[in-house]
Formats: sequence, structure tokens, C-alpha cells
Amino acid sequence: MVALGGGHGLHASLSALRRVTTDITAVVTVADDGGSSGRLRRELGVLPPGDLRMALAALCGDDEWGHTWSEVIQHRFRSEGDLHGHAVGNLLIVALWELLGDSVAGLDWVGQLLGAHGRVLPMSSVPLDIVAEVEGVDPARPYELTTVRGQVACASTRGRVRSISLVPEEPPASPQAVKAVREADWVVFGPGSWFTSVLPHLLVPDLARALVETKARRLVTLNLLPQKGETDDFRPETYLEVLAEHAPHLGIDVVLADSGVVGDTGRVGEVAKEMGGRLVVADVAAGDGSPRHDPDLLAAAFDKIFRG
Amino acid sequence: MVALGGGHGLHASLSALRRVTTDITAVVTVADDGGSSGRLRRELGVLPPGDLRMALAALCGDDEWGHTWSEVIQHRFRSEGDLHGHAVGNLLIVALWELLGDSVAGLDWVGQLLGAHGRVLPMSSVPLDIVAEVEGVDPARPYELTTVRGQVACASTRGRVRSISLVPEEPPASPQAVKAVREADWVVFGPGSWFTSVLPHLLVPDLARALVETKARRLVTLNLLPQKGETDDFRPETYLEVLAEHAPHLGIDVVLADSGVVGDTGRVGEVAKEMGGRLVVADVAAGDGSPRHDPDLLAAAFDKIFRG
Repeated sequence: MVALGGGHGLHASLSALRRVTTDITAVVTVADDGGSSGRLRRELGVLPPGDLRMALAALCGDDEWGHTWSEVIQHRFRSEGDLHGHAVGNLLIVALWELLGDSVAGLDWVGQLLGAHGRVLPMSSVPLDIVAEVEGVDPARPYELTTVRGQVACASTRGRVRSISLVPEEPPASPQAVKAVREADWVVFGPGSWFTSVLPHLLVPDLARALVETKARRLVTLNLLPQKGETDDFRPETYLEVLAEHAPHLGIDVVLADSGVVGDTGRVGEVAKEMGGRLVVADVAAGDGSPRHDPDLLAAAFDKIFRG
Repeated sequence: MVALGGGHGLHASLSALRRVTTDITAVVTVADDGGSSGRLRRELGVLPPGDLRMALAALCGDDEWGHTWSEVIQHRFRSEGDLHGHAVGNLLIVALWELLGDSVAGLDWVGQLLGAHGRVLPMSSVPLDIVAEVEGVDPARPYELTTVRGQVACASTRGRVRSISLVPEEPPASPQAVKAVREADWVVFGPGSWFTSVLPHLLVPDLARALVETKARRLVTLNLLPQKGETDDFRPETYLEVLAEHAPHLGIDVVLADSGVVGDTGRVGEVAKEMGGRLVVADVAAGDGSPRHDPDLLAAAFDKIFRG
């Protein structure tokens, strides 16, 4: 199984996948420019480690050892000083990168430390910036397009993101990620920030080609709620339409949506069909009313889909 | 075996001890106020972790796993920014302390990570400051005593340190360290910065009492060269005299000195005898002329002494 994404969405996807398979590879966006990751990227010239760290934590071993080291890498310093906000795992990953000179080897060492159920790979070997074409940044001119640069700026824009691109354009894919996609049985897109965590994979040429050409089946997990700013006018089918716009040749086998978000019929089912797939509607939202996927419910839905 | 000290001296002692025994407990000074440790202590209100980290690294497992994690914890960030100079292991140890709320448990987790040949304990459960009475800080008044506070200031003073004390006075000992000293076969003092790494243990009341009362035999390893400032007028016997001044009831069983530092006879042998012990002279200096102990030679000397 290959899971694509970044941040909390990928964490949710991996937390479910680990319940149904032992063979997981996460392919993670490396375009973050905010918080601890953004500071490390600027200070040390490294890949932003935060989304990679979260994915590793989601895959930690089931015993006390795995849970403790997972808590350690997720721990953030709180102070009035220089370390405030840094996640310990980010510092550990960066140290391994500096020491080993190899981003994949460094992540594999942290994976071994955690006894991780799978592997975590960066989608590209170089740090990326996301550039978005955004409509209506200025409410007085709702149809004017503005170019916004940086993941934080794109994810928090007041306008509607229409499309994204990467800087550098056509970045090098991680060869291990390309290989994992080509050898997978299933590739899972989302949930997550659609423009800044899910779509970027389709803009890395070698990775996009592998995603289009792989014999793996492709599953798209829709978000529960539109994300403020980035996707706040999204209907369920819009997620798929945006995928198709950024990767016209990408076929989809299954679209998984929460029953609270879509009914059994609707436009999203038609779009899924146009892309070659079928819509699966299931209860996958957390019971507490928060806009999070419940790991057990999502795992059950995955399991049913994977068993066909 | 219990080894007492801090910094590079303790690292040398542990690097040798691990070659001759599998049962090592390091009891480490926690008075550092410089560098990465000093910054962490001020920013986060924790014990200074640096000397504890170095001791753990010295005890790392023999395999690739142990060596790699040892290199990781010893790795220092180099940048123009906030992280410059921080050792990764210091950050990791502090994170475990914050997470577990227990300094000994945190160190034991890092020890497990490294597959360490033994245990590393702080001598006290609270951060300490060293205060020194220093003679001749002002060369124009060579016999005037000045009070100097802080390990860095004491270790680099231009005057001659005459005695030290701790702030807070009578700090609480780590109970595990007291127990280790009482149950040991041998207790090893030095090498290391005499006033700031070796003597402080004798100023923690419960630890000092254990060091005097233990049935363990006591070995003092003398330094190869006087340390600039702190001990630059020391003769070999001065190390012992200063120990006796700070802990009048402390008996010594063996004093180990490098043959380049003392001859077979001399005042140091007499002082050793007055303290109840014997002088052992051996070649223990590194062959490259640097003022470091050679781990293999030091191990051979230890082994001969321990076998009686």
C-alpha cells in the first residue's frame, strides 16, 4: 500500500492503514514552509521534516518502546527562547540527514527506532515551494487571479485556489517513492489539504508518471469538511475535478466518502465513474463531531475496499 | 564499577572501563553552565544534559546501531541561526525529561536506545552552580581571594582555584547514584577538570557520605596535564591533597598516574600512602602526544588494578 499526502490528513490515513496491512509506504509532501519545519528549512537548508515526522509517528510500533519514541519525536519544546515550537523529531531527522547525507537513509533510521509498520519517503529529494493561482484575494475584485507562494500562504489564503504549481518546476522524484508506487497494489490519495498536501505529488514528473502508469488500484479518500480558504467552496466532486485538472490521465478505481458528506447518489458518483471508478459511501467520521476520520472506521472501510 | 566525573575526562574513563567490565554506572556532574547545556538550562530550567550525553555516548553498544545513535546524539548543529552549537543528544535527553518528568528514567531511555554498556546518572536531581575561591585573579594582588561563580568562569579563571562549593549548598543526591556507590566494587575518580568535574561529587552530602562509607575500593586517576587556569600550578600530589581537603575522611586505595607525569618514587606516592593507598605508575597517555588517555592503555591499567 502506498499512501500519498502530508500533515494531519496523511496521519489519519496511515493510522487506518496500519490496522489493515503490514506493508505501508508513505510518500510525503516536502513543501512546508511554516512552523518548526519552515525554520529548519531556512536555517539549515534541509527538506522540511515535519510531515515526514508525523507520518513516522503514525506508523510507530505497538509496544511501549514504539509509543514512547513516537511521543518523543512528536514532543514540542515550549519556552520563551530559541527552541520554542521545535518538534524533537524534526531535529532528530535533520541530524540524521546531516550525518548520513541521505534523506531516505535518515528516515529509515527513525523508522527503525520507532519499530515502524512501514516506510516513510519524501516525494522529492529537494525542498519545494507551492505556488497557487488564487481567485478573489481582494473581495472587491472577486474574479481577479493572484499568485500566492508558499504552503502557509496558499493554505490560509482568503481567496479560492484555482490551481497550483511547484518551484522548482519539475523537481526530481525520490526514486524509492517512484518504485514503491509502481510496485504497489493500492495507492491512496488523501484525505488532507487538497492543494498543498495531496496534489503536489502529481506535479513531480517521475512520480506523476508512476501514479498514472502503475498497475496499482487508486483510492481517493475525500475530506470531511472543506478547508477554510483553500477549498471552502468545494463540493464533494470538486476534489476529483481538481485531481483530473492537474493529472488528466489519472484513472481512479474507488472514491471513499463519508456518508455525512455525500448521499448515495449525486454528482460525485458520476465524476468518479467518468474517471473510471466507483463511489463508496461509509461512516468514517469521528463520532465526536470533529472533522476527523475515525481510524477504526476508516480502517474498516479500507479493508472492505481492499478485499474487493 | 562506578565512575565519577564529567566531560571529556569521564568520557575517557568510561571508554576504558567498557573494555574491562560490563557493569558500569557513571555518576555525572550537573553544574555545567556553558554552551548548549547552559543555554538549555537557562531556557528550559532543566539539568545541564551535556556531560550526561557524553557519558552515554562513551558507553554506546558495539554494533552499527549503537555507533550510529551515538554519533547522532553527539552531532552538533552548525548554522547562522538559533540551533547553532546545540548537540542533538542534549535536545533528545531534555525532551525525554519533559515527557517523563523523571531525569533518571529519561537517561535510561537514551541508554536503551544506544544499547549502552551501563547506566548514566546525574549526581544530583537539581542543577548546580560551582562557586570557587580563586587566588590571584588580579596579578597585581596575587594572594587576594576572589569568589567566582559558574563552571565556565571557574574552569577558565586566570587565578588559582583554592577551593570550591556548590549552590545550592547541600543539594539532594540522586538516590540511584548513592545506591550504586554503596553497592560498587570499585569507585573511580577522574581524570577530568579537578575542581569542576571531579570534586563536586564530594560536596553533595548523601553522595559524599556514600563515597566515604562504601566498601568499594577507591581509584583515583590523575590527569596527564594541568588544566590551564584551574589547576595550572598542580603537582601530581596536589590532586590528592585537594581531594583530602574537600573530603577529609575519604580513603584512597589506588592512585593511577602516567609514567610521563610521575616517576616511581616521589611525593605523590607518599601522599597516596597517607590516604591509605598505593601509587600505580603506567603508560596510559595517547601515543600522539596529545594530553589524552589512550582507552586501550587505560583499560589495561584498570584491568591489572582491578584484578589486584
